[in-house]
Amino acid sequence: MATDDATPPRRATRADVARYAGVSPAVVSYTVNAGPRAVAPATRARVQEAIRALGYRPNAAARTLKVGLTKMFGIIVPDSSNPFFALLAHAIEDAAATKGYALIVVNFDGPPEAVANSIRSLALRQVDGMLVAAEVSMPILGAIAETGIRTVLLNQTVAVQGIPAIGPDLYGGAQEAVRHLIWHGHTRIGYVGELGPGDQRQRGWRDALAAANLEPGPVAAARYTREGGYAAGQRLMREPIRPTAVFASSDMQAVGVLRALHEAGVGVPEGIAVIGYDGSPESEYSWPALTTVQQPVVDMAREAVERLVAPVESSSFTLHGTTLIVRQSCGCPMGSADD
Amino acid sequence: MATDDATPPRRATRADVARYAGVSPAVVSYTVNAGPRAVAPATRARVQEAIRALGYRPNAAARTLKVGLTKMFGIIVPDSSNPFFALLAHAIEDAAATKGYALIVVNFDGPPEAVANSIRSLALRQVDGMLVAAEVSMPILGAIAETGIRTVLLNQTVAVQGIPAIGPDLYGGAQEAVRHLIWHGHTRIGYVGELGPGDQRQRGWRDALAAANLEPGPVAAARYTREGGYAAGQRLMREPIRPTAVFASSDMQAVGVLRALHEAGVGVPEGIAVIGYDGSPESEYSWPALTTVQQPVVDMAREAVERLVAPVESSSFTLHGTTLIVRQSCGCPMGSADD
Repeated sequence: MATDDATPPRRATRADVARYAGVSPAVVSYTVNAGPRAVAPATRARVQEAIRALGYRPNAAARTLKVGLTKMFGIIVPDSSNPFFALLAHAIEDAAATKGYALIVVNFDGPPEAVANSIRSLALRQVDGMLVAAEVSMPILGAIAETGIRTVLLNQTVAVQGIPAIGPDLYGGAQEAVRHLIWHGHTRIGYVGELGPGDQRQRGWRDALAAANLEPGPVAAARYTREGGYAAGQRLMREPIRPTAVFASSDMQAVGVLRALHEAGVGVPEGIAVIGYDGSPESEYSWPALTTVQQPVVDMAREAVERLVAPVESSSFTLHGTTLIVRQSCGCPMGSADD
Repeated sequence: MATDDATPPRRATRADVARYAGVSPAVVSYTVNAGPRAVAPATRARVQEAIRALGYRPNAAARTLKVGLTKMFGIIVPDSSNPFFALLAHAIEDAAATKGYALIVVNFDGPPEAVANSIRSLALRQVDGMLVAAEVSMPILGAIAETGIRTVLLNQTVAVQGIPAIGPDLYGGAQEAVRHLIWHGHTRIGYVGELGPGDQRQRGWRDALAAANLEPGPVAAARYTREGGYAAGQRLMREPIRPTAVFASSDMQAVGVLRALHEAGVGVPEGIAVIGYDGSPESEYSWPALTTVQQPVVDMAREAVERLVAPVESSSFTLHGTTLIVRQSCGCPMGSADD
C-alpha cells in the first residue's frame, strides 16, 4: 500500500475476506463495524487474520454512510516545535472535542504552495472544516476557495475578504507590556523580535514609548527561537548604553535573552528587566519566572470552532485581547504573581 | 456540512457546478485539478464562486484516481503539550517528508477506547500507514488489526506480538545519567518521576546505584509536568537528609525541580546537582543549562518510517540508545558542554 505502482492491484473486497476466512460477508461487516451482531472471538480472529492477509480496507465512503464517520476538522499550523502553535492546536483540539469533532493537525514548514497542497490534501480526506494558521497569500486563498470547505483563518492581524478570520491583539498586548515596564520606572527599553513593517508587537512597543515621550531603546533582530533571543541578548549587552529593560516578541526569545543576561552576570530584573510574549508554559518555569503577554489561545480556539460549526458572515474578523501575566522578570515582587 | 441533519441534502455534483457557472463540466475539472488544460482567470473565478455557492466538494475517491492523492501517514501521540511527543512527531514529519509522505497528527488525552477510535478514524481517512505512540492494550491492538493498515508502535519498552515496535533505551539512559552523578562524587542521589513497576528510568537509577554499592536516595513521585517536578523538588527539600543530586525522569520535571531549588536558595549544581531526561530544547535554556539524557527521536523516527515504507518482520522490536548531553546542572564546567 505504500508503493508507487502505476497500476495498483485490485483492492480486496469484503467478499474476498469472507471467502478467505470461510464466513459470510455479513460476518465480515459485523467484525469490521463491531456490530450490530456479536461475532464469536475465534471467528473474529479469523476475519481479522483475513483482513490482514488480503490488505482489505473497508471503503471509507461506504463506511461513512453505514456506521458514521468521526467528524473531523483539519488544522494547518506552522512547525509545532513553536510552543505558541502547539498551544493553539491543543486549545482547538479541546474546543473541537466539546462539539464532537476530532482534529487532524498538519504542520507545515514551507512556502505557500506547500500550504496550499496541505489544504487540498485535507479536503480530499473529507474533513468537515478547516482552520488555517498561515500568512495569507494567493496560493493559499486559491486552494481554500477550490475545496469549497468551510474555513476559518487563524492568527491573522487584518480582515481577509471572503473568509472569516480571527487573531490576537498583538499591538494592544505589546503596548500593555511596555507601559508596565515604564510604570516600573524604565526609560530605556529595548526590543527583541523578528523585525518587519507589519510587526504589530514592535509597533506597540514604539507607540507605547512615544505616548510616554520616551525614545525607542535599542532593537535587536531575532528569529522566533531561543537561539535567536540568546544572540539578540548578547548583542544588546554590547550596546554602548545598555537598555535597563527588554521587551521580547515571544517567550522563546525572552528565554534566550535571560540566558544571555545570566551568562553576562546581569541580574534579572535588578540589572535588566525582561517581558516576553505568548504565555507559554515554559515562561512560568524560567528563572526568574517571566512576566509575559498571554495570547488569547482559548478564546481564539473557541471562536474558531464556533465559526466552523455555525454559519457566520464570511468576511468577519475578530481580534481577541491579550492578558499581561505579571511574574518576577519585570521587577514585581514574588507573590504579586498570578501563580 | 457541519450539521447533524439525519437526511443530508444531496451533494452538489460537477454538473451542478458547471450549470451554475455556465461552463462545461470539463472546465470545472480543469479548475479543480489545476489542469491539464489552462482556464482563463475570469472563468476560473466564476467556477470557484459556483463551488463555494453550491458547497461542491470533489469526490475524494475519484480525485485519488485522477490526480493522485498526497500519500499520508497518520500518527497517534499523547497530548502534544509534552515536548517529548512534540519532538517525536516533528522528527517523524521530517522523516516521512524525505520519503514523500505527509503526516496527519492525532493527539489523544483519553482512555484506550479513545485511542482505538482515533485509529479507526485514521483508517477511514485512508492513510497509507500508522504510527501509534500509546501504551499497548487490547482495544488498541484490536483496532489496529481491524484496519489492516500497516502500523508501527512507537515508544514501546517491550516487543509486541504481531506489530513492529520501536522504543528508546530508557533503562540504559538512566543508568548513564546516574553513573555520571556518581562520577561527580555524589552518594545520595534522589529520584523524581512517575513511579511504577514498569518505570525503566527508576529501575536504571536504582541499578546504577546498586552497582556502585550505594543506597537509593529519596524518591519523590511526580507527574510528567513542570508543576509535578516543582512539587517533588519542594518535598525533597523537606527530607531529613537532603540528597546532593537529583535525577529526574523528564526535562519538564527537572525544570520544576530547578525552580524549587532556586526558590529555596539552593545553588545548582553546587548545592544540589540535577540531571533531566529527554533532551528537550527547553533544557538547553534552563538556568543553569540542564544536563540531560537525549532521547533517540531522530533514529526512532527514521526507523519507524522505514518500517512503514518497506515490509519488515512483523514482530520485530528495536531499542534505540540514548545520549547523555553534559551541560552545567550536573556540576561540569561550562565549555565542556556539547553546545
